[in-house]
Amino acid sequence: MMILHEYAPSGNCYKIRLTAALLSLSIERRSYDIMKGETRTAEFLANVNANGRIPVLQDGERFLPESNAACFYLAEGSALIPEDRFARADMLRWMFWEQYNHEPNIATLRFWYGWVGEAKLTEAQRLQLPAKRAAGEAALALMDEHLATRAFLVGDGLSLADIALYAYSHVAEGGGFRLGDYPNVAAWLDRVAAQPGYIGIDA
Amino acid sequence: MMILHEYAPSGNCYKIRLTAALLSLSIERRSYDIMKGETRTAEFLANVNANGRIPVLQDGERFLPESNAACFYLAEGSALIPEDRFARADMLRWMFWEQYNHEPNIATLRFWYGWVGEAKLTEAQRLQLPAKRAAGEAALALMDEHLATRAFLVGDGLSLADIALYAYSHVAEGGGFRLGDYPNVAAWLDRVAAQPGYIGIDA
Repeated sequence: MMILHEYAPSGNCYKIRLTAALLSLSIERRSYDIMKGETRTAEFLANVNANGRIPVLQDGERFLPESNAACFYLAEGSALIPEDRFARADMLRWMFWEQYNHEPNIATLRFWYGWVGEAKLTEAQRLQLPAKRAAGEAALALMDEHLATRAFLVGDGLSLADIALYAYSHVAEGGGFRLGDYPNVAAWLDRVAAQPGYIGIDA
Repeated sequence: MMILHEYAPSGNCYKIRLTAALLSLSIERRSYDIMKGETRTAEFLANVNANGRIPVLQDGERFLPESNAACFYLAEGSALIPEDRFARADMLRWMFWEQYNHEPNIATLRFWYGWVGEAKLTEAQRLQLPAKRAAGEAALALMDEHLATRAFLVGDGLSLADIALYAYSHVAEGGGFRLGDYPNVAAWLDRVAAQPGYIGIDA
């Protein structure tokens, strides 16, 4: 059985659990407390991920960091990856966009407010708040516009693009974003949550 | 023929040109001056990329943003994408890592020093310099350690992971990084540049 090295509240880790659940795959979970530095120990760096981050998906003796790569590994050959070549690349487009334009703003503000605490932010972090707020709102607005005429991000059905972006979108209010401002995103979140096999982030 | 909407000095755009060159594919190039806001016009946002960024690869009437997704689209079915399932996911791992851990530090410092100018940085940007410097050095150190025992990032041959990471690594000195500090990276850069069909960023 594959092992997910994870910190459960992380949306990046949840993506992998959600992908596995939608594919009816069982994975073993091994937990690390990132707030206690458990992914920065010499042992973790040497044996799990030299980058000191979770999630890492372990298959036998091989270790695969990066949430979206792990989702891709689990889902190859399934309906979560479109068969059409352009659609498949377009799915990856949204997954790269998620890591560059969405996660560093929406997930980071959720982490700063919900885990670090506003009072403990550094001056450098505090000065980034307006830019991260604006960029996160722009990301949600771009999704909202895209989803105005589509049920899912790519093609006609659920793909890894939806899973990757669902993970931190559905908890964006933890970063101070108002999902009510993005009705097409909110309706899409409901469609993802209605999928057979869906599990929540706390499951 | 496919069209690359681009700003030539961007490493993200260069990745796509290099992938095409290594595959002997011809692409038409259409240039935008990002310093003049040419990717933020109403026309660009409506017709090319609602995210206001280059590169975008156009194939007929379909538009594909995100550099690494465009490289994947071009390279499917070629030797630049490993046949082994784990290796293919591991290639994507490095490509996601590039966009999250490498590009926002190394490419951003290159842009801030080489295009914006240190004197014109905002206070929020200036306060991020130490963290971006440290994170960029950590990224290069992680690559250097990985490449100590390997010729290429994944498996035995060149893959899109190498192309994605070559793009900004080979111009990292523009961001104030010293490639001489990372001898395995420097030797790997030379191996990439020695590939048949290789073109430089200024080509």
